[in-house]
Amino acid sequence: MTDTLRPAPLRPATVPAGQVCFVGAGPGDADLLTLKAARALSEAEVILYDRLVSDEILALANRDAHLVSVGKEGFGPSMTQQDINRLLVLHALSGARVLRLKGGDPAIFGRLDEEIEALEAEGIGWSVVPGITAASASVAAIGQSLTKRGRNASLRILTGHVMEGFADQDWRALARPGEVAAIYMGKKAAHFIQGRLMMHGASADTPVTFVENASRADQRIVASTLGTLAQDLAQADLSGPALTLFGLAPRAARQALPAIRKQEVS
Amino acid sequence: MTDTLRPAPLRPATVPAGQVCFVGAGPGDADLLTLKAARALSEAEVILYDRLVSDEILALANRDAHLVSVGKEGFGPSMTQQDINRLLVLHALSGARVLRLKGGDPAIFGRLDEEIEALEAEGIGWSVVPGITAASASVAAIGQSLTKRGRNASLRILTGHVMEGFADQDWRALARPGEVAAIYMGKKAAHFIQGRLMMHGASADTPVTFVENASRADQRIVASTLGTLAQDLAQADLSGPALTLFGLAPRAARQALPAIRKQEVS
Repeated sequence: MTDTLRPAPLRPATVPAGQVCFVGAGPGDADLLTLKAARALSEAEVILYDRLVSDEILALANRDAHLVSVGKEGFGPSMTQQDINRLLVLHALSGARVLRLKGGDPAIFGRLDEEIEALEAEGIGWSVVPGITAASASVAAIGQSLTKRGRNASLRILTGHVMEGFADQDWRALARPGEVAAIYMGKKAAHFIQGRLMMHGASADTPVTFVENASRADQRIVASTLGTLAQDLAQADLSGPALTLFGLAPRAARQALPAIRKQEVS
Repeated sequence: MTDTLRPAPLRPATVPAGQVCFVGAGPGDADLLTLKAARALSEAEVILYDRLVSDEILALANRDAHLVSVGKEGFGPSMTQQDINRLLVLHALSGARVLRLKGGDPAIFGRLDEEIEALEAEGIGWSVVPGITAASASVAAIGQSLTKRGRNASLRILTGHVMEGFADQDWRALARPGEVAAIYMGKKAAHFIQGRLMMHGASADTPVTFVENASRADQRIVASTLGTLAQDLAQADLSGPALTLFGLAPRAARQALPAIRKQEVS
């Protein structure tokens, strides 16, 4: 058989039947979905999605897909992690093509391990499609880098929800000049973070920037400093998911476009 | 005029003429490009690309685009950062739609600031499209999370190329049980990193995983430990870009698909 008679290889299913594909939805702008994530959305029969996933992304789902909101917060009934694990297992065992859609990247504050372990316990196959994480989208929005020669030797990724493991020495290290941290879910912990850092010697002038709804049409940037962040936050009254960029200020720039989204037609 | 007679709004150019669009190419699998990055590739007239950008991604570029390799290492003539800055400026000033294509995410060890500053000095507009960073692709490849409740309170992102700023206290903090770090460009520094961590009390049994060419067809995973990493690395003889995941081991799993790419047709 010559090559020209051999049928073209089929593209393997991104969301095979009876399995779960964990997909990072990115920060909200549907244009920041990966090609693979977009394909998964079109193949999936059941989609369990987080509260953080934007409507414009859900709009790309297969028209016949069964969409299930599994948000653990916000208005309406809350689901426990155990509920979510059970739903994933049930749908996969029913033979459906199951997509577990998480905001941002599944591997960063996504409670991915718990869900994988629930599937493994039932012998259910799974895969992971990475997504654009909020830190990347947020710095793009303010025209900065997360790392920079001569400024920060490392980048810290933290969550405001679980700060117990962050010890005195960690605060002291973060308080040094030039350090940069991306703090997820940091709004409620802002005052606490401010206190710890200043206690350990960080300058009150250290820039701190809040990026709410990064990449979305309603994105907001609040430029603040370590010394004034509690009142700046209160005044800004951010209601959407916000990433705190400690150590970075928006670039005062002639940036041509909003880094992610342009509102006006060019 | 009724809505039906109004022409549909044109999608704004992702790569406007006379400007530079910095685009994250992701780890190498073209399926992990964002939709926006793919669009930028089709619009660009001049593409300045890093050595880390895969051929399969370059293959998606506009057929008429002028592709310029600006790798600073490897075989063939090396370009300085200043050379790259000059080229960006020249092409933009000529009125071209310029795409600056960087491996992974432009904001993570991408020397983005230097290039933005060169453009700003000339009054050239620019924007940034985030990309999937190697850390995300690498953990997806081994079925793990970068963050996990009860294991690590924070994630460290480091580069093996510039370790001077990483002080004793940082090594001491990273040496604690459960800590996780994603070390970019860490092959040459592996022995040094091993020494520092063990000196500061890290267990020799701490898992360390090297993921070479994450997401690509020639992806390789080398599971090692802090105590044995120097010889494991030497034996593995990794020639491609490799991410070091300190504190993580591949999940021994019935993971259905290689996390990013499946070789066989299903």
